[in-house]
This record gives sequence, C-alpha cells and structure tokens, in this order.
Amino acid sequence: MAVYTDITDQELETFLGEFDVGAAVTFKGIAEGVENSNFMVETTVGRYILTVYERRVDAADLPFFLGLMQWLASRGYPSATPIADRSGALLKSLRGKPAALVAFLPGLSVRRPTVAQCREAGEGLGWLHQAAEGFDGRRSNSLGQAAWAPFFAPLEDAAEALKPGLAATIKGDLALFARRWPRDLPKGIVHADYFPDNVFFLEGRFGAAIDFYFAAWDQLAYDIGAAVNAWCFEADGSFNLTRAQAFLEGYERRRVLSAAERAGLPILAHGAALRFFLTRLNDWDATPAGALVRPKDPMEYERKLAVHREGLPGFGSWS
Amino acid sequence: MAVYTDITDQELETFLGEFDVGAAVTFKGIAEGVENSNFMVETTVGRYILTVYERRVDAADLPFFLGLMQWLASRGYPSATPIADRSGALLKSLRGKPAALVAFLPGLSVRRPTVAQCREAGEGLGWLHQAAEGFDGRRSNSLGQAAWAPFFAPLEDAAEALKPGLAATIKGDLALFARRWPRDLPKGIVHADYFPDNVFFLEGRFGAAIDFYFAAWDQLAYDIGAAVNAWCFEADGSFNLTRAQAFLEGYERRRVLSAAERAGLPILAHGAALRFFLTRLNDWDATPAGALVRPKDPMEYERKLAVHREGLPGFGSWS
Repeated sequence: MAVYTDITDQELETFLGEFDVGAAVTFKGIAEGVENSNFMVETTVGRYILTVYERRVDAADLPFFLGLMQWLASRGYPSATPIADRSGALLKSLRGKPAALVAFLPGLSVRRPTVAQCREAGEGLGWLHQAAEGFDGRRSNSLGQAAWAPFFAPLEDAAEALKPGLAATIKGDLALFARRWPRDLPKGIVHADYFPDNVFFLEGRFGAAIDFYFAAWDQLAYDIGAAVNAWCFEADGSFNLTRAQAFLEGYERRRVLSAAERAGLPILAHGAALRFFLTRLNDWDATPAGALVRPKDPMEYERKLAVHREGLPGFGSWS
Repeated sequence: MAVYTDITDQELETFLGEFDVGAAVTFKGIAEGVENSNFMVETTVGRYILTVYERRVDAADLPFFLGLMQWLASRGYPSATPIADRSGALLKSLRGKPAALVAFLPGLSVRRPTVAQCREAGEGLGWLHQAAEGFDGRRSNSLGQAAWAPFFAPLEDAAEALKPGLAATIKGDLALFARRWPRDLPKGIVHADYFPDNVFFLEGRFGAAIDFYFAAWDQLAYDIGAAVNAWCFEADGSFNLTRAQAFLEGYERRRVLSAAERAGLPILAHGAALRFFLTRLNDWDATPAGALVRPKDPMEYERKLAVHREGLPGFGSWS
C-alpha cells in the first residue's frame, strides 16, 4: 500500500521505450497492491499500471502470475492484461527488481459491501474459477492448510501475548484441520486474496478482479471460504448470513457447487480465517513499536476464528 | 508523499454528490504533494485530484491558496483549477479535515533537469509571477527571512550533532542576512516551493506547476533563488552555471529582472538554501530512529549552503 521503489523520468522513458505503448504523459505512484510498488502511467496511446515487485513476491512465481493474468484476459475475464514488450517478454526489470506493465482497469472498490455487491463479487469469483479452467500453470498454495502448523510454531508466544490462552486455542484449530480438512473437493486456480480491495465495481456491477499475487492451485471452495470471511462479516465481528447467501448465489451463476463443496464451506472458511490471522500476526509481531506504518490488526481475524468455532448457523454444515 | 486519510467509497460518493462532476469510476490514492493526502478521481465526466489537507497546512491559509489557484487558472496559467461545488464553495470537508477538488493535470516531473528543462521551468516561474499580478489575496511568508533566526534557535544542538561547528556557521549566515538581506526588490506572489517535483513537462515543454501550499507575498527574486537551488545543482553538490543561466533566460521570456534583482540573486539563493536546510533539519530531528518513512536529508542543503558561502562565480554578484 505504498511506493517502495522510486522511478525517475529517465528510467521510465528507457523502460517504456522497450514497448509499443507510446510516450508517458502522466506518471504517479499509487497506494494499491499487496507490498509491491504500483504506478499509474498514461501514455500517448493508453493507460497502464506499472508494478515493481518487492520482497513479498517470490520472483520465481512471477511467470505463473503473469501467465495466469494473460490467460484470464484471453478468456475475456476482466483482470489486468499484462503487456508484452517488443521481444514478447511480460516480465521485465526496473532498478534491478522484477517489473511488469499491465493494462489499466477502471472501477471502484467498496469498503462495506452491500448484499447486492456481495452477489456481484460472488459472480466475479465463480467467473474467475471458470475462466481459469484449462490454464496449465501450477503453483502450490504456499499458505495452504499444510503450511499453517509450521507457520504457527514460532508465533505461539506472539499469539499468547495478544490474548492469554490463544496459543492453545489455535493449536486446537490446527488439530481439527489436521483431522477434518477436506481433501477431495474440485481443484483449480484460486485467487486466495479475493478481498473487497481487490475487486472493482462499475455502476454497481462486478467490474474486475486485481492482484493475483497469491493465486495458486487449490480446492476452489477454499477460495469461497476466504472470500466469505472478507465480504460477509459486520464491523462488529458478527457473520452476515444474508450477504454470504448472496455471495454463493452470485457464484453459482457461473459455477454450481457440489453438495460436498457446500458441506465443506464452514471448515474451509474457518481454515481461511486462520491463514489470514497467521500472516497478520506475523506482520504485527515483526513491526517495531512506533513504526509509522502499522500492519493490519490480527485481532480482526481472531474474532472471525471465534465465530467459526461456534459454527455459522444456516451456512453449509460440518462435513 | 503518502496517503494519510482513508476515504471509503461511501464517503467519496457523498463528497462528489455535492458537485456537478458525475459519478466516480476510478479512485486511487497517489504519492504526490507535500504532506497532504492526494487521490486521483476519474468520474463519468472528467478527471480530478482530491486533496485532503493534513497537519502541515494551516486551514486558515486554504482560502488564500485556493483563491490563488483559481486566479491563476482564470488568467490561463497551467495550474490545477479548483472545482466549486453547487453552492460555489471551493473549500470542503472530508472526515473532519479540509478538502478540495481540483482539475487533473497531465504531465511528468523530471528528476535531473537538463539545460533545456531548466529554461522551460524558468519560463514557468516567470509566467507564474506575471499571471499572479493583480491577485488581491495576501499571505506573508511564514518561512521568510525574518523567521529563520527564531526557527533555528531550538535546532542548534541538532545542527551541531549533524556536523560539529555547524551551529556557529549557521549563526554567521543569519548575521549576514540580518545585515544584507535585500528588502526593496519587487514583491508579488511567490510559489516558494518551485522544485522539480512540482513542475510538469509535456513533450519537453513546461506543462504546469502544482502544489501552491507554500505560496506567499514576498520578493519575487527570492523565488528564483529557491528554484535555482532546486534546479541548478549537480548530484555531487556543485553549482551548474549553465543550467542557472538557462533558468534565468527562460524566466526573462516572461518577466525581465531589474539590475537590483540580478545583483540580489546570490544572497537570495543563499538564504533560500538556509530556509530548506532549516525545515529539513527540523523534520530530521523530529523523526524517531527506525521510522519507516525517512524525511529528506538536511545535508543536501548544508552542502548547498557551503557552495553559497564561497559565492557563485558568474551568477549575479553581491549587492
């Protein structure tokens, strides 16, 4: 959510000179994206986003991400199309860091989604799962269920410092997932970070999805679980069943869920809540007191975990 | 250079609803401006910058700044036109902070200006001084020469910590300015922060000036001195006479300097270097070690001060 790399006008001119995109007329750093630096570039022929990949993204994964974005665009899915340079390369370099140019997408993200927006967002996710079918790139989900126990081990003290007794509660969650995590649900490409700030609306309709830098090969219904956590909870921490039903309704306009997927949704959403709790706890723990940029509060997801432990009445069932 | 205020889609809709500018289709926080939060807003009818004023800007000065921007735009000067809401108001409020909507300006700022760009930038400053003539708003320069001695008093230890002996050297500068600062040069509206990042170029020509939030009533040649410090030094700290001459040449396409103004330029530029040294030293001193955002290095201006103390051969003369 910031600009970490400083690009001069000369560097920009050299970079754009390798593409057939005209000359820059506007160049602004924008506050968007995971932990990459993003710039809006307007040229004499169009508008683009220039992304410089910072430490969070493994450079070895970039061909997968860019290939996926290109695949989705070729299938008509509204996501940012990567632009190839004259030699056909999508993955470039700027200031010694990996960088890419993608088409600019209009649209507005929402902060507190309405029921109608949840329905549209659900359709956007179903459409994504459908559009990604046939893409032959593979990336295992490095933040998937198998990763959570080893990820948590060094964070036990941090969890305990957040709330006494929390480390044992989390270990209970981990044990539950070890025993009961679904393993045979349909797999495909998941976005894995389908939060409201990564979805654009245009005139109330789903407009586009951005930020595919957590995308991986995993159970598709897990992506729904993670999205429901992000779209269908109130600010007070309670679950909003109406919004969750609308999300699923929208999803099924594009891809119908099997009975096993529906039955798995509660535990998948519970697990997804743990995944975001763990990375937020890690970021929180790693940030020195007094730093000007505070990471996201892990307690938001601790509260969602507690809701999941009670169960979500009316939403799927324990398999 | 960051986004300090978080604006939701709902807040944006309410804000824009008070203007005749259509509905938002794109909204992005941008890394631009002094210490305000800036957002690029594209609507169904045009593109705008939304600025939310943060702590650095005194709200009481905003009617002056916005009035000046409106005056300049009405005179055909390429600066951001403030947009009035339906009731005619330019100064609005968002999240309890002052805010304004201005027209979006295309253009690219440069990092290491060429001689030709310095000539264009000089013309842009001369044009500004000329276009501002007749504007009846007044704001005294709160960071002008009279302010430097009291501003420096609490920073003596910080200067000494930066470089032993520096406090005494600065006091020497202050004594020189107290004795010899020009007082009778033509006055008008000065930009007072005419740095390369506040000037946009379009196809190599001066395109626009932005960020008028230090503008004040002062001696016009002081503005040239401050700009020459920002535009006409090499990265190694040396003065580039060729660029400075080009800057003045460009300036005089719009407004011819008097002999007294030319003669005053060296001491005015020396004083302007102290003004930027002092605010950078203050910001540096106020930032805790380990903070993620580092302020600008005061040593850049300490080196410029040293150059000025030796004199700038070929550039004006001591009056």
